[in-house]
Amino acid sequence: MATQKIDIPKTCSLLRQAEDILILAHAGPDGDTIGAAYALLYTLRKLGKRAIVRCSDEFAPRYDYLADTLEQPAFDPKYVVVTDVADTTLLGKDMQDYKDKIDLCIDHHPSNKGYSNYLLLDSSAAATCELLFEVIEALGVDIDAKIADCLYTGLTTDTGCFRYSNTTARSHAIAAKLIALGADSSTINRLMFETVTRGRLAVQSAALASLEFYFDGRCALMHMDRDIIEANQCTEDDLTGLSALPREIQGVIAGVTLKQNKERTKYKISLRTFEGVNASEVCERLGGGGHMRAAGCIIPGTLDEAKDAILKSLALSFQ
Amino acid sequence: MATQKIDIPKTCSLLRQAEDILILAHAGPDGDTIGAAYALLYTLRKLGKRAIVRCSDEFAPRYDYLADTLEQPAFDPKYVVVTDVADTTLLGKDMQDYKDKIDLCIDHHPSNKGYSNYLLLDSSAAATCELLFEVIEALGVDIDAKIADCLYTGLTTDTGCFRYSNTTARSHAIAAKLIALGADSSTINRLMFETVTRGRLAVQSAALASLEFYFDGRCALMHMDRDIIEANQCTEDDLTGLSALPREIQGVIAGVTLKQNKERTKYKISLRTFEGVNASEVCERLGGGGHMRAAGCIIPGTLDEAKDAILKSLALSFQ
Repeated sequence: MATQKIDIPKTCSLLRQAEDILILAHAGPDGDTIGAAYALLYTLRKLGKRAIVRCSDEFAPRYDYLADTLEQPAFDPKYVVVTDVADTTLLGKDMQDYKDKIDLCIDHHPSNKGYSNYLLLDSSAAATCELLFEVIEALGVDIDAKIADCLYTGLTTDTGCFRYSNTTARSHAIAAKLIALGADSSTINRLMFETVTRGRLAVQSAALASLEFYFDGRCALMHMDRDIIEANQCTEDDLTGLSALPREIQGVIAGVTLKQNKERTKYKISLRTFEGVNASEVCERLGGGGHMRAAGCIIPGTLDEAKDAILKSLALSFQ
Repeated sequence: MATQKIDIPKTCSLLRQAEDILILAHAGPDGDTIGAAYALLYTLRKLGKRAIVRCSDEFAPRYDYLADTLEQPAFDPKYVVVTDVADTTLLGKDMQDYKDKIDLCIDHHPSNKGYSNYLLLDSSAAATCELLFEVIEALGVDIDAKIADCLYTGLTTDTGCFRYSNTTARSHAIAAKLIALGADSSTINRLMFETVTRGRLAVQSAALASLEFYFDGRCALMHMDRDIIEANQCTEDDLTGLSALPREIQGVIAGVTLKQNKERTKYKISLRTFEGVNASEVCERLGGGGHMRAAGCIIPGTLDEAKDAILKSLALSFQ
């Protein structure tokens, strides 16, 4: 069956009819998928329904303030909803059993593959939580401080605290409402953006020390050393956002970050660009892909081989 | 004459009556004082008045997009307005002639000294620009994209891009309106927050490498080396915000940054704290002062002497 694209009123009517609902977040869970999943959970409970959140991966401890503390008897899910999941592969290994059984998907990714029975998609929303706020408002459910915390978390993490170019007047208007409804924005932003582990700091310092500049300073390249990552027991969550650093340097329009895999057989390359370099084009030449301003690819071999490959592809785009 | 505290309607009537207006920003100008000064300038011009912005210090080049490009014949100011200036000493050396001649002050600092004839003060506003938005709305002046850029600049810089605890629902609601009115939030945030000079990066790397931990990891201390600052030709503007870093480390409730003066005779200490340590109390013991969560003091002597002094005062507050 082809996916049926639906609007907010239809989404509300599906949610009102659903019972015993399983909500899935995407693997490698971030603030938006977790925030949306929990916001929906608490909303459905207020409608008198049984609901539960699951994910292939554990949620990082800094999201504990959103967690479900209700001890609820187990139940067999009759309805499956996913939040912020563009593709079923993103459900992760442990949730693949559900990949053909998704009743409803609520998402904001333009790349959504259309795998669910029903799809509420708004790619103009900065976050799934931005869209979900409008769904919960339309449902007429009272948005309490906990739901507001969930939705604010998704909104602030997906907009880099209202800094990224996806942030719109609508994002701010919804943030205003969520704070008025009790979202503890100050604590949430501290947890999301201002809590750096010592491990992250060590990796960051070493990465910055490795910075090299190419193309008359318009390209900055750094690498994260796997040995340093391991010596400092850094998780992937600890390293979130570091690949944004090279592009922040004055005059740089292409920021490259190389990170070796655990097996030390290949490098994951993240490329962030500004106008003048199409990141997606550069990475597609190396078998990767992504967006105009943020893309990635994987290069097998040594650090020098990976550097050489990305610099050669960049050279074609810098001309 | 004592300062008369006034409300927004009275401020509007004063501005409507004023002619040939000089607008002063505070020395060491930041986004809020510059943004407010220019927003007021363009507003007054729309009301058919002559107006000019001045400051003791030059504005950093990253604020160029706000600058006044009109070539206007010189005039003798008849009315002096200051924006975001808590005290006349903050006007800086070159503007001290005006210190007893300020007609109107528009400000959000609770510590405002009350030196002007009229004072519009709202300490619940996250930024002077937040308050000024309401003044311009009340004046009925059309807020164009340039005025919106000015006001957004003050709002985003004084809230750390909506991250600091001074950010309220009102801040977001006004940001929503400013973006809808044409503020180029994406470019402004890139200029304000994501443009790091190579010099700053070098100072930051060295400072992070100097990190030391005390009181079971609850205190992090770093120092910025004057030699490295000079070798990298860093301005004070380049170093904005670096003293926030130590407190961002997980488990740290007191973050200390030491910076040597140019003459290498003393250290400026910045202290940022979270609940559990009163920064103002710690710095007052050393002849400094400030707020509960951010304070400072100056210690003459060597780095070791400065460290010793601040750690001894911290020890009293950690007990």
